[in-house]
This record gives sequence, structure tokens and C-alpha cells, in this order.
Amino acid sequence: MARNVEFFFDFGSPASYLAYTQLPRIATDCAASIVWRPMLLGGVFKATGNSSPVTVPAKGRWMFDDLNRWAKRYGVQFVHNPHFPLNTLTLMRIATGLQSARADDFARYCDAMFAAIWRDRCNLGDPVQLAAALSQAGLDADACVALAAQAEVKARLIASTEEAVARGVFGAPSFFVGEQMFFGQDRLDFVREALR
Amino acid sequence: MARNVEFFFDFGSPASYLAYTQLPRIATDCAASIVWRPMLLGGVFKATGNSSPVTVPAKGRWMFDDLNRWAKRYGVQFVHNPHFPLNTLTLMRIATGLQSARADDFARYCDAMFAAIWRDRCNLGDPVQLAAALSQAGLDADACVALAAQAEVKARLIASTEEAVARGVFGAPSFFVGEQMFFGQDRLDFVREALR
Repeated sequence: MARNVEFFFDFGSPASYLAYTQLPRIATDCAASIVWRPMLLGGVFKATGNSSPVTVPAKGRWMFDDLNRWAKRYGVQFVHNPHFPLNTLTLMRIATGLQSARADDFARYCDAMFAAIWRDRCNLGDPVQLAAALSQAGLDADACVALAAQAEVKARLIASTEEAVARGVFGAPSFFVGEQMFFGQDRLDFVREALR
Repeated sequence: MARNVEFFFDFGSPASYLAYTQLPRIATDCAASIVWRPMLLGGVFKATGNSSPVTVPAKGRWMFDDLNRWAKRYGVQFVHNPHFPLNTLTLMRIATGLQSARADDFARYCDAMFAAIWRDRCNLGDPVQLAAALSQAGLDADACVALAAQAEVKARLIASTEEAVARGVFGAPSFFVGEQMFFGQDRLDFVREALR
């Protein structure tokens, strides 16, 4: 029986945020571990020929109605970020760097980034707002930004994104239970079934 | 309280087929009526700038895995049609024509088309296979094809498709409960909630 669920995500994806609010409980219920897999959604789109739903205006309008319905069902806070779509390259690099260099800070960092974007409407593409969000979360902003600049960290994020694409990922969030892939926060019940 | 659910569909959409297998039970449970709204999905794609998920190869591969999971959950037959994507212009015109001219045949026609495509793997773009499927369902194939050729029927399908787009539809299936729109067979539980 598979007891891991790999969670490929990007902070800039609102559906990744909703999945992040639900996945820990599912993992606990199923005695499974979450393997956090930061990736660059923009890179996935480029590699697969996919694009954000909001590139089709009618789909974008519906998508936020739909996300609000799910947030209400889950009982979680969710607001539209006026700076969406965000460039998350630095954010995903920091996630990748923290995961190996300062694993203790990784969860706090993820919490802070998701909250800043999808609850507090921050523009984390702005270095000043990013530094403020990091400091507020008790993280060393300068150290985080320095991590993002490391060649090895950059290469690792590229490798993770390429691995995701090679395994069939075309959007975020995507989950793997063994070799089974599930796309979308609206497929979490299938993830739960697969973990049982 | 809204007691109608409008069902915008195209026979060529596998998710429309899955929705069609589930919606009657939901309507019965909620004492609601289904308003059948045939539309041309190709026309919706053209008008909205949207495109079939299968235009992104990785998404197309995942989509059929996903549809199979839902079919299993619903306990319904579902097979991949090797002729997908089908040109459904004639099929949707016949649906539009029957709905007003021979309402008694409409349900039988819908059953026959969905079954021929998504259970029997027929190529209904082939007039011979279409005629066979119609005859097998006890429908007058020549009369159906003649309906599809009527200018008034053609205009009505265009008008329905344009209405769908004007109301926010960008894909199939789409449902309306009052002014609330829901996209996708995977949103039927939200449709159910809206009908209550």
C-alpha cells in the first residue's frame, strides 16, 4: 500500500492553496506522509503547451466563482489576489532551497506564502512585500533571498519541474500516489481513496 | 426556489455523457426539472477562445484516466471513442430539431447518441453509422437527417450556442440553476446543493 502522497504545487495557484488547506487532514486520516514538491507552474505550462485557465476570460470568471464555492465548503478563508497571476520564480526557488538547507523553516515558509497571497492579497512579486511577509513569519528575509540566488537551488527547481512534466503533470496542484496522478484540488477525494 | 436545471451539452463531450447518466437522478431527488439545452461545443470553443483539453496532450491523457475513475464511481459504462473528437454538427442539429418537432423522440434520441458514442464506440460522423444508430433506436433516420437540414433548425442551434456563450459558458457540460453556472460533470454535487 502506498503511504505517501506527492504534492506538486506553486504558491501562485489558487487551487494549490485550497489543496494545501485540506491535504494535511487527509494525510493524517490515512496515516500517509505528504511529500512536498515545489515546482514552477509557468515552466510546466511552457513545457506542456498548457496555459492558465484565465487566458480564456469566461473560464477565468467561472474559476473564481468555483474556488469561492470550494473555499466555503472547506470552511477556509480565500480571497482573490488582485496581482494574480503572480511571477512565483523567486518564491518557488526559496521553497526549494529551504527544503534541503533549513527543513525546519519549510512548513512555516509555505504557510506564510500561501497566506500572504490568498488571504492577505499581497503582491509577493514586490521584494519589499516579500521581505515583510518573510519577517512577519519569523524567517530571515535576506537569507531566503540569498538561497534563491544559489545556482544549485535554481537547478533543483528546474529539475523538479522537469520531473513533474516527465511524469505527466500539466497544471497545479497535482498529486501522485505511487504512479497514479491526480490533477486539481477537486480530486482530493480520489487522492484519499488511493491512500486507503 | 429554483426548480429547474438547464443542461447545456454536446454528445461529443465525454463529460457531458457522464453528466447525462447522473443528472436525472439528481433532478428526481430534488423534485427539479431538467431543461435540455443542446449546443455546439465547437462553436462555444470558437467564440470563447477555449479549446478541447486534448489539445494539450498531457491533459488529454490524464482526462481519460479521470473520466474512467468517475465512470467507475458512478457505476456506468464508459469507453474511449477512437473517433474522438467527433464533428457533432449534424447530431446537435437533429437534437435541436427533434426537441420542438417531435418532443416524444427527443429523450430516445439523446439516449441513442450518447450510447452509440460512449458505450459502442461508433463513428457518428459517418452517415451510415448514424443512420444505423437512429434506426436501431426506432427513429426514422431519413426524417432526422431532413430535420438537420432545415434552416430554422440550424438557426436555432446557433442561437442556443450564442445564448450559452453570452451567459458565460466556455465548455461542456454546463449547468444553470437560476443564474448560477456550474461547469463540468464533477460539479454535479454543487448543482444538487443549488437545487435544494
